[in-house]
Amino acid sequence: MSASLIAKNVAAMRAYTPGEQPAGTDIVKLNTNENPYPPSPRVLAALQSFDPARLRRYPDPLALALRQRIAAMHGCAVEQVFAGNGSDEVLALATRAFVDDGGSIGYFEPSYSLYPVLADIRGVARRPVALGSDFAWRMTAEYRASLFFLANPNAPTSLRYDQACVAGFCAGFPGVVLIDEAYADFAAGNCMPLAVAPDNRNTLVARTLSKSFSLAGLRLGYVVGPAPLIAAIYKIKDSYNLDALTQTLALAALNDLDYMRANVARIVATRQRLTSRLRGRGWTVLDSQTNFLFARPGNGDARGCFERLRAAKIFVRYFPGPATGEYLRISVGTDQETDTLLRYLEEHAL
Amino acid sequence: MSASLIAKNVAAMRAYTPGEQPAGTDIVKLNTNENPYPPSPRVLAALQSFDPARLRRYPDPLALALRQRIAAMHGCAVEQVFAGNGSDEVLALATRAFVDDGGSIGYFEPSYSLYPVLADIRGVARRPVALGSDFAWRMTAEYRASLFFLANPNAPTSLRYDQACVAGFCAGFPGVVLIDEAYADFAAGNCMPLAVAPDNRNTLVARTLSKSFSLAGLRLGYVVGPAPLIAAIYKIKDSYNLDALTQTLALAALNDLDYMRANVARIVATRQRLTSRLRGRGWTVLDSQTNFLFARPGNGDARGCFERLRAAKIFVRYFPGPATGEYLRISVGTDQETDTLLRYLEEHAL
Repeated sequence: MSASLIAKNVAAMRAYTPGEQPAGTDIVKLNTNENPYPPSPRVLAALQSFDPARLRRYPDPLALALRQRIAAMHGCAVEQVFAGNGSDEVLALATRAFVDDGGSIGYFEPSYSLYPVLADIRGVARRPVALGSDFAWRMTAEYRASLFFLANPNAPTSLRYDQACVAGFCAGFPGVVLIDEAYADFAAGNCMPLAVAPDNRNTLVARTLSKSFSLAGLRLGYVVGPAPLIAAIYKIKDSYNLDALTQTLALAALNDLDYMRANVARIVATRQRLTSRLRGRGWTVLDSQTNFLFARPGNGDARGCFERLRAAKIFVRYFPGPATGEYLRISVGTDQETDTLLRYLEEHAL
Repeated sequence: MSASLIAKNVAAMRAYTPGEQPAGTDIVKLNTNENPYPPSPRVLAALQSFDPARLRRYPDPLALALRQRIAAMHGCAVEQVFAGNGSDEVLALATRAFVDDGGSIGYFEPSYSLYPVLADIRGVARRPVALGSDFAWRMTAEYRASLFFLANPNAPTSLRYDQACVAGFCAGFPGVVLIDEAYADFAAGNCMPLAVAPDNRNTLVARTLSKSFSLAGLRLGYVVGPAPLIAAIYKIKDSYNLDALTQTLALAALNDLDYMRANVARIVATRQRLTSRLRGRGWTVLDSQTNFLFARPGNGDARGCFERLRAAKIFVRYFPGPATGEYLRISVGTDQETDTLLRYLEEHAL
C-alpha cells in the first residue's frame, strides 16, 4: 500500500551504511577515520562562552563570518565559498545543483561508497570508472558525466592522484568536477589552486572539519569554486542549514590552524611508524596520504583478520568486493592504540 | 559558460527569501516568529556539561536517544519518527522521498512561501490551491498531487483549519500529506492523532523546536507517521544529518515540557492582549492559533504601515500580493515589545 507512495528510485535503492559506532570504552576504534585527538581548546572556549539565549533566534542563513574566514584561508572571495552541514550536505546539494533529470554522476571505483548512493537518491545514472590494481589515475578522453566526484586523496585507497592528471581532467571535462579533499590536510599537496584559479569554470574543491580538525561530531563541510556554481548551491540549500553553534565552533577551530597542524603532524608520524611495522610483518601497505592505511595482510585474508580484530575489540573497516576484498582500511589512532593493534598482530602471527 | 553546468530547474528558479535578520540591539524584532524568551535552563546545563572531546567522533546517525524521547511524547514507535536539521530538512527530504520525476507538490495559497520553492528545487509541478478571502479550508474532491504540504495552523494567516476537514482530506488523498505543525503548541488542538493512528498510511505530522521551544538557532525538526514512509526518508538523508550538540540540546529541551508550556502560555496571553488592542484601533485581526498575528491595519495600507514601522526599528513581515497585501504578519514578542509597537501605532494614528 505504502510502496506506491514512495518515489520509485527511493523504493529501489539501498541506503548508505555508515561505519559501525560501537559503544564501550575498552574499544580500539580505527574504523571511521576519526581524529584520535580532541578539537582545539578554542572550540571548548567558544562552547563555554556561547550564550544559549542566542539559540532562540534563527542563525545566519549565509554563515557569513565563517565563510569570510574560509575565503581568507584560501585566498578567494566569500561568494566562492559554500558552507554546509558536513561534506555530506555539500555532496548531496551538488547532485541537485549540477545534474539534470536524465543526467549522470561519475566517480572512481573503488572510492567513497556514498557516491553511487547519491546517484541513486538523485535518480540518475551511475558512471563509475574502474581503477586498476594499482589504484592509480585511469581515465579516458571520451569519458562523460554531468558531475564527477573525485576523492583526492582517494578513500579507501589512501592514495593521492598525480596532480597533472587531475588538472588535465578538470580542464577538459564538460561537466562539473567536485574534488572531495576530506583528507587533504594529511597529504603532501592539494587541488585548492584549481578551485580558486581565475579561469576555473567547472571545478569545486570540498573540505571537511571532520578529520584534521577533530570535529566529525560538529558537521561542517565546505566547498570552494566558481561563484556561479556556488550561487547555484545557495539557491537550493535548506534556508538555515547551519545552526548557530556549528557556525561559532567551526570558526573557532579555523582560527587555530596551528593546533590542527600539530595534530596532523602527530598522526602522520604515527602513520609512518604503523606503515613500517606492518610492512615489516609482510603486509602490503599503500603510500598513505590520509589519516588511514589501506593495507593487505601478508596472508591476503583481510576478512579473517578483520573478524579476529573485531572479536578482540579492535575495530577496523573491511570493504568486500574484488577490488578491495584483500585489504583493510585502518584509521591512524594514537600511539597507544597503534601499539595495541601491533601487539595483537604479533601475538597472533598476522 | 557556467549556465549550462547548472541544472535547468535550478537556473530557472528563484530562491526562498528568509525573513530579514537586522543587526543591532535597539530593534523590536517581530518579523520571523522567533520566541521572545530564552530556551529552557536545561539547555544551558546540557551545553555547559557537554564534553567537546565528543566532537571528534561522528554523531549517532540515527539520533536514537532523541527519537526515543519524541516517540514516547507522542505514543508511537521510534521507527515512526524522523529527526532532521530543522523542519527545513524534513520538508526537503519529503519532496524527494515521495515525489517521482514528473510528479507534483501541492499547498494552499497563501501558506508558507517555501513550499513552491521546494517544488522548483525538486523540479516538479506546483499544484497550489487558492484559499478564499476568509482563508478557511477549501478543497475539491478531485484534487491530486504527489505530496501536499498542509501548514496547520497556517502561516501567514495564523488560522487553524477545521479538524474534520483535515482528517477527511487525509483519508481520501491518494498521495502523501505532510501536515506542517510548526505552530501547533500555540493552538487549541493538533493533528498528531492522525499521524500515529494505526490505520494511517499517508499522513505525516512535522514539528519544530524553533518556535515553542525557543530553539530556532539549534535547527531541530521532526516528523511522525507510518514507519514505511519514515524509512524512506532515512534511506535518503545525509549520513550524519544531526550533529552531536543538536541531538544533546534538543533532548534536554524536550525533557522540560513544563518550561515550554509556561512560555507558550505567556505568549498566548500577550497574543490575546495585542489582538484586543489592535481590534480596538480598528484593525482586522484573524483569530490566531500561532505565535503571530495576521492583521489588517484600519486604513488597509499594510505596506505603508510596514515601512513606517521599519523606519522606527520595529520589524514585522509584509507579504505583497493580492491575497496577503493588505495584512501584516506580526510575531508576538514580550509584553515590553508589544507595548513599544502599540505606542508607536497610537502616536502615529495607525
